[in-house]
Amino acid sequence: MPLARASRPIGVFDSGIGGLTVTRALMERLPFEDIVYFGDTARVPYGVKSVSTIEQFTHQIVDFLLQHEVKLLVIACNTMAAVAADSVRRRVSVPVLDVIDAGARNAVATTRSGHIGVIATPTTVNSNAYARGVHALNPEARVYSQACPLLVPLVEEGWLDHQVTRLTAQEYLRPVLAENIDTLVLGCTHYPLLKPLLAQEAGPTVRLVDSAVSVAEQVAGTLIELDLANPQRGEPNYRYYVTDIPLRFQTMGERFLGRSLKHLEMVHLGN
Amino acid sequence: MPLARASRPIGVFDSGIGGLTVTRALMERLPFEDIVYFGDTARVPYGVKSVSTIEQFTHQIVDFLLQHEVKLLVIACNTMAAVAADSVRRRVSVPVLDVIDAGARNAVATTRSGHIGVIATPTTVNSNAYARGVHALNPEARVYSQACPLLVPLVEEGWLDHQVTRLTAQEYLRPVLAENIDTLVLGCTHYPLLKPLLAQEAGPTVRLVDSAVSVAEQVAGTLIELDLANPQRGEPNYRYYVTDIPLRFQTMGERFLGRSLKHLEMVHLGN
Repeated sequence: MPLARASRPIGVFDSGIGGLTVTRALMERLPFEDIVYFGDTARVPYGVKSVSTIEQFTHQIVDFLLQHEVKLLVIACNTMAAVAADSVRRRVSVPVLDVIDAGARNAVATTRSGHIGVIATPTTVNSNAYARGVHALNPEARVYSQACPLLVPLVEEGWLDHQVTRLTAQEYLRPVLAENIDTLVLGCTHYPLLKPLLAQEAGPTVRLVDSAVSVAEQVAGTLIELDLANPQRGEPNYRYYVTDIPLRFQTMGERFLGRSLKHLEMVHLGN
Repeated sequence: MPLARASRPIGVFDSGIGGLTVTRALMERLPFEDIVYFGDTARVPYGVKSVSTIEQFTHQIVDFLLQHEVKLLVIACNTMAAVAADSVRRRVSVPVLDVIDAGARNAVATTRSGHIGVIATPTTVNSNAYARGVHALNPEARVYSQACPLLVPLVEEGWLDHQVTRLTAQEYLRPVLAENIDTLVLGCTHYPLLKPLLAQEAGPTVRLVDSAVSVAEQVAGTLIELDLANPQRGEPNYRYYVTDIPLRFQTMGERFLGRSLKHLEMVHLGN
């Protein structure tokens, strides 16, 4: 017998392990929801791939999660959200939320001056998706974007409070801060781990918008609105699927998730 | 009519574009040889993937190059050389040279003290392949390895002479230099672009071994030995196949190759 819709899990996916920061925010905001996570660790990073390749990979992942009867999909990867969110929405009948739309909405709600900075991977910046999301809500806002390709490898190296990371952040933030922003969107799921360092470098006048927290808040609202909140009050069920289990995966994954990572399974998608 | 063996191209492959530094060394050392390059840019980087995934991907690439009738294969990727060189040699009948074997031989020929440093990606270091290669030739030698996961993204960012790169190199080199090495192997095909900076940080008493130059020298010797040197004296034919053409590929590729990158074609392998 199929599960009642509200009792089904939330599907969360990312190109790798960065989306575990979104999963963590969901666990904290919605402690009774089951979650199925998919990370395409064999083909990460997506941020340097072409649009057609990203779309193809994204559709394979969505098909996999739909087979697991998810009630709602969260695109927890800024690159996939920037490039493939529209085509995912056309493909599926469940609600699809994504980190870019959520981050853009939160940024518009947060800013006073209307000057918003966005830091992200090169593909996300080039897609211009945050600027489109912000301007759809507030055509007067100004968005200043900066690609930060080194921040992901610095997080994965674990240099979360290191002089090299600080200098790199200073270099990336300099042109954005020069625009007198009052809000800075962390447009990559790796960046929440750098929040203390980025807050220091951005200074006290800049408010940080964490798109992981923003999307968790949006999911909570959507579940209530559509009467899809899980009625269970026991311990939720978390499952993690990846396409590869690379070196240091467990350590890194637990750092992102903020808790132990159990029920991990490796699967193959199309190669 | 099939080409005479000596007139066939050399096949060079890598997980991405790093192997273009090996291609460049081959072009300079063997200016009459045709070259077919394969870069698996859709699935790069391999350095963070599991052994079985790397083997599977490597075999797909080798099969592709054999269809192009190559007379010799060069594994221009330290990760693939570390993990999959033996299984490639068992699979094919053409000679297979690789950057690790070449770098290890050159290091043993270069060192006076017998203390050799190796910097590479985490997978290459964990494979212990350089230490095995060195000890097979000189059991008395000492090999000190250091994983440097940030150097590849720093090269790809183009920060070839940047304070952040210098600090990062200092941090990575510190434990290796403390072992009084006199030879440092650049165990990743991205690192030749950092040669000036690494030479400064390693100091005048340490000789750098560039595995791209080392393997080109080995290819030259093998072609003479097996009577496979191309008799043509006209302009050679260079072709490049990649599985994706990511952002900034042309700029980055030409920086690695040291010349313009023409005849580039995108192909699909198994996904």
